Amino acid sequence: MFPESFEKTAKLLEVLPGVGAKTAQRYVFTLMKMSDEERNTLADALRGLNDLHACSTCGFLTAEEKCQFCSSKDRDSSRIMVVSYDQDAVAVERTDSYHGLYHILKGVISSTKGIYPEDLNLDSLFKRLDGVKEVIVATPFTVEGEMTAMYLDRVLKDKGVLVTRLAQGLPMGASLDYADDWTLTNALNNRKGMTND
Amino acid sequence: MFPESFEKTAKLLEVLPGVGAKTAQRYVFTLMKMSDEERNTLADALRGLNDLHACSTCGFLTAEEKCQFCSSKDRDSSRIMVVSYDQDAVAVERTDSYHGLYHILKGVISSTKGIYPEDLNLDSLFKRLDGVKEVIVATPFTVEGEMTAMYLDRVLKDKGVLVTRLAQGLPMGASLDYADDWTLTNALNNRKGMTND
Repeated sequence: MFPESFEKTAKLLEVLPGVGAKTAQRYVFTLMKMSDEERNTLADALRGLNDLHACSTCGFLTAEEKCQFCSSKDRDSSRIMVVSYDQDAVAVERTDSYHGLYHILKGVISSTKGIYPEDLNLDSLFKRLDGVKEVIVATPFTVEGEMTAMYLDRVLKDKGVLVTRLAQGLPMGASLDYADDWTLTNALNNRKGMTND
Repeated sequence: MFPESFEKTAKLLEVLPGVGAKTAQRYVFTLMKMSDEERNTLADALRGLNDLHACSTCGFLTAEEKCQFCSSKDRDSSRIMVVSYDQDAVAVERTDSYHGLYHILKGVISSTKGIYPEDLNLDSLFKRLDGVKEVIVATPFTVEGEMTAMYLDRVLKDKGVLVTRLAQGLPMGASLDYADDWTLTNALNNRKGMTND
């Protein structure tokens, strides 16, 4: 009903998560309000994504051969934090409390979705364990994330490396009566002496 | 934290309505899953929008000089439906129960937002009234839409053209106890004989 180039763009935008026909149309109207130059900038930015690929060492997105973490000389290369997704590494990085390297699995083991260890970015992890003292497993605390963590623990222990897992407990600002039973049980089992000894 | 081209695209996508940093990031991850070719197609589609502009007669989006409605010979040129936005014309068109022409105001009169009659696509409406028997005012049924309708009625009546307004009443599937008072009052005042006489 709209001109062809309008309909075509709207249809293409429907690939975005959670974007249906109506939202796609609203997006195109917003794009129509932009100047030609602004739209061209966005178009060029999309083409710019073509240069990105997974780091050959850890799998994090990069435009170079090695990502910003693997190519840095200031990081502790004796520690590798294994995360499921690129954005998890970015979240940890934001805290500024970890200065080791990362390894991006690009997913979790899921029998229901048919994702098995061989579908994850694992081979390259096993190849980089020389000189590594600790692997911190930071997969999500979901059933699938826990299954992935248990699998990693099993295969990595055999290789003589210390395997740790992020702590489970109550998040900041949590009140006990709103916490789920599993979280509360974990918080109780993992309790610590108040003087941190 | 992400590579530069990633961050740049995400930032640009934040211009879209309702899209914040988190959603923009999710969008870029979806775009990353597409092939280079698919991304280029989307980039080209965005550039394709540069060809669109308002029809010189009615204001509807078009890549030509005149839009699909104004250039059609099968439409009843003695009737013009005045709508506020392009998508309103498309909505009416979908019903297949109107075959006249359209005129797109590109907004509504709004004293709070500082939008006055001279800011709307009105001059071109006055210029095309020759041979027009009826102007159907189809601005939204909001305070601003009603104000715009009243203004149109006043200025168009002086020009000797019949001015009509879409009917107000209860929508299909409505139950009376959920209808607001204004709608119910209008439905009562506009009641019709059941044999449609």
